[in-house]
Amino acid sequence: MATAAGVDPALVHHYFGTKDKLFLAAIEAPVDPGTLLPEVLEAGPERLGESVVRLLLRVWDGPARPAGLALVRSAVGNEWTARLLREFLVSQVLRRVVGTLDLPPAEAEARGALTASQLIGVVMARYVLRVEPLASAPAEELVAAVGPTVQRYLIGDVALPGRRD
Amino acid sequence: MATAAGVDPALVHHYFGTKDKLFLAAIEAPVDPGTLLPEVLEAGPERLGESVVRLLLRVWDGPARPAGLALVRSAVGNEWTARLLREFLVSQVLRRVVGTLDLPPAEAEARGALTASQLIGVVMARYVLRVEPLASAPAEELVAAVGPTVQRYLIGDVALPGRRD
Repeated sequence: MATAAGVDPALVHHYFGTKDKLFLAAIEAPVDPGTLLPEVLEAGPERLGESVVRLLLRVWDGPARPAGLALVRSAVGNEWTARLLREFLVSQVLRRVVGTLDLPPAEAEARGALTASQLIGVVMARYVLRVEPLASAPAEELVAAVGPTVQRYLIGDVALPGRRD
Repeated sequence: MATAAGVDPALVHHYFGTKDKLFLAAIEAPVDPGTLLPEVLEAGPERLGESVVRLLLRVWDGPARPAGLALVRSAVGNEWTARLLREFLVSQVLRRVVGTLDLPPAEAEARGALTASQLIGVVMARYVLRVEPLASAPAEELVAAVGPTVQRYLIGDVALPGRRD
């Protein structure tokens, strides 16, 4: 992509590191999952669902929210941003969390996608549509309510969906 | 609102019935929850979660999808549409489903909002961001995976969030 745009890829790499860093810079993301996820994983597999929801809310309840909302707005209206956001979610967030569970690739993909569906839904309900009581409830109450869902999707008993042939 | 716009409210009512019918007409919704929800409720409380997810996917996998996507795009970018969509979801969809369960109002609101978070997340993951395998999986596989979550939110064991005082 950088080459097609007449830009030396080595220069992009020098300034932005990886393609993911470039994406983070492009969306002016005030958080880098690479630095936040280790503490999520620290809690151990029994509390993984809760930890993931807690981190999501900490980021979105903090100064990153305007950038996050702008990103969601752009992704919903624009095919290209949607693809960037999807790749970012899958490669930077889901693969890192689910990757610690040592699962076959298809199972990891399905559990990651189900997890994404609940996390994106929380963002939409709490921050975009502002559905009460989710919009104003203390973060820890959402962690308690939604954490078990994410836990089930990540490592619990679930009939996993697969890609249609 | 109709009066402020110089329109006779009786005339609006004559053409559109209730405010909700007006909303459905305004968004050119090809489906009216009032006619679809009874069959969801028919399955009985043990299968309510599955039935709700199945109906959601039937509507979105059908001809209503373009209108649905347009509505989501508008709601994400526009405070006023977001409020309309929220009111519609709460009054027309959630209240009708949760209303059959005979719960105290605060509990009904919390269970409805949690349900909304998962349903909106499925729409975003499957139809907007197109995260695989959710984007291409057969509907019934999603019903099997996500139905138990909605079932838990509607009538299962869940630590309910409340509005912050």
